[in-house]
Amino acid sequence: MLEITHNNAINVRLSEDGSAVIILDQTLLPGQREFIHLRQAGELHEAIASLRVRGAPAIGIFAAFALYVIARDLGLDNFEDFRSAVRKYSAMLNSSRPTAVNLSTQLQRMESLVDSLSAEPISRIIEAMRLEAEAIQLEDIHMCRAISEHGLSLIGDGFGIMTHCNAGPLATSLYGTALGPILLAHESGMSLQVYCCETRPLLQGARLTSYELHNAGVDVTLICDNMASIVMSEGKIGAIFVGCDRVARNGDTANKIGTSGLAILARHYGVPFYVCCPSSTIDPNCPTGADIEIELRDPMEIKEMYFERTVAPDGVKCYNPAFDVTDNSLITAIITEHGICRAPYTQSLSRKDI
Amino acid sequence: MLEITHNNAINVRLSEDGSAVIILDQTLLPGQREFIHLRQAGELHEAIASLRVRGAPAIGIFAAFALYVIARDLGLDNFEDFRSAVRKYSAMLNSSRPTAVNLSTQLQRMESLVDSLSAEPISRIIEAMRLEAEAIQLEDIHMCRAISEHGLSLIGDGFGIMTHCNAGPLATSLYGTALGPILLAHESGMSLQVYCCETRPLLQGARLTSYELHNAGVDVTLICDNMASIVMSEGKIGAIFVGCDRVARNGDTANKIGTSGLAILARHYGVPFYVCCPSSTIDPNCPTGADIEIELRDPMEIKEMYFERTVAPDGVKCYNPAFDVTDNSLITAIITEHGICRAPYTQSLSRKDI
Repeated sequence: MLEITHNNAINVRLSEDGSAVIILDQTLLPGQREFIHLRQAGELHEAIASLRVRGAPAIGIFAAFALYVIARDLGLDNFEDFRSAVRKYSAMLNSSRPTAVNLSTQLQRMESLVDSLSAEPISRIIEAMRLEAEAIQLEDIHMCRAISEHGLSLIGDGFGIMTHCNAGPLATSLYGTALGPILLAHESGMSLQVYCCETRPLLQGARLTSYELHNAGVDVTLICDNMASIVMSEGKIGAIFVGCDRVARNGDTANKIGTSGLAILARHYGVPFYVCCPSSTIDPNCPTGADIEIELRDPMEIKEMYFERTVAPDGVKCYNPAFDVTDNSLITAIITEHGICRAPYTQSLSRKDI
Repeated sequence: MLEITHNNAINVRLSEDGSAVIILDQTLLPGQREFIHLRQAGELHEAIASLRVRGAPAIGIFAAFALYVIARDLGLDNFEDFRSAVRKYSAMLNSSRPTAVNLSTQLQRMESLVDSLSAEPISRIIEAMRLEAEAIQLEDIHMCRAISEHGLSLIGDGFGIMTHCNAGPLATSLYGTALGPILLAHESGMSLQVYCCETRPLLQGARLTSYELHNAGVDVTLICDNMASIVMSEGKIGAIFVGCDRVARNGDTANKIGTSGLAILARHYGVPFYVCCPSSTIDPNCPTGADIEIELRDPMEIKEMYFERTVAPDGVKCYNPAFDVTDNSLITAIITEHGICRAPYTQSLSRKDI
């Protein structure tokens, strides 16, 4: 079994006594590196909704730990009452963000575990929930490593790589998804030039990805999102790697707003466009991208957040979708822990022996 | 002759005594509406370089007034000395920004005027320079009006329109170029929904375009640059209108960074992509876009400017090109005061009877 050796990269974990989920508050990066302890259902929900913890795999892991922390505090000894309360809080956590499927998948997994242990004492069920949440995290570590290794096979020494938003260790565990192949290539001695799109409005590319890559010693250049076209036109990019929040059965992929535009530019300039994700991000209940709910967020994120003063006049409307859907026809390959899936995705995504 | 009636929209003008150029400082918008008086060559140069005055036509007009203000203060009565000093300051003003051709075109026009008046007393030449600068501005007003009318013919009632950066009255005179057709359509009672890209890093779309359109009563929605793809994918956009800073003979067009990406998205989604400019923006000395110098600006604009704290770690590199070149094949039409030019642009751009 893979050991957790990069302790710094485990940004979601339980406190030693199991009473709190500890996270690195991503909203404070890169200026402050602060771990916060979360115990109450309300603050656990808020941490997801306000992006203190973010990244599809990370919020799945966080939600599993959160449900455990809430469950151990319920003080119920009747199974039906316990299961009913767990379901209520699971639904409450699940309502924090709609687009990433990992959140509902991992909460569903925790609920199923509880269902399967109806004959056990509550204290045993709670203990099993802790082990399950830890298993989810360990599996994510393994999956990220496998994704990174598969992705590495698509990278050559001297490559220019573009990425968007943050799909690194902060968003997952250890290597990350989209940043995994980059970090592994760097560790193996390859020289890469990475261009990181700042990712408006919440600047995850500037605040998190450039931070992670710079800390790892990778040659990283920050650009505004609207500079992707000129950078590709100058022949600087050999491949684009992004993570994702939900993949439909046909390969349509929801990821951070701006991803679909990057994929269209990549097609125009002949640059391969790769999506990296654990297979838990593939939603078997979702036939196409049109079935993915896109989260709309507060206009203040565009007009005020991070700025020293409001940058648009009062009364001007904003449209603030947090994600967009990239058509499967624009995706060169989807890389999961099972391997490199290519079109037609309806077949390749359902295979585990690629 | 067209009267200047929209006094508020004249954002570059001479003081009554002719000793200063007065501009609305665009860096303070939308929070503060402050007119500043500029007299010294150094502060006139700085006003262009730091974007207190911006927009290709506006900086051409400003530079003409600036050269007059400098010339009247030279205190020289020998023509050769006067001409030499004018040329020196013209070159100095011209060095403030490299991409927009209007700056060098209008300065060259002022120099040629001086050359043509070698037999006149210096005081007469200076007076002629003032009249020439005013003529440049009046011509721009007429050209913007003509561009607006030609552009209006491409807009239907109920249209969704996307624009990028700012090519409105602030960037030109009165109606603007890309915003001209929109403002004219609105004045004529059409109902439009305008999507305005915020335009990182300097937020001209958020700070200036949404301000101008909102003040005019146009229905405007601000989006981040990376949201253009989802907005087009949702069928909300019937046409894109942008301004430009230099057009090569073959129709390749330099405009604010991000424009080429928008044009690629527009092609993908089947949305017409229109470039609006006075014919002075067409550079007969520039065969293709590859011959246009792209201004690279300070990384602090990406990491620090307008933010309450630095948004990327120290030591992370930034690439900050202020413009990009849109290939002529992606442009549906270029609209000048002469009419609507379509491919092949090498022919249509040189005609004045379209």
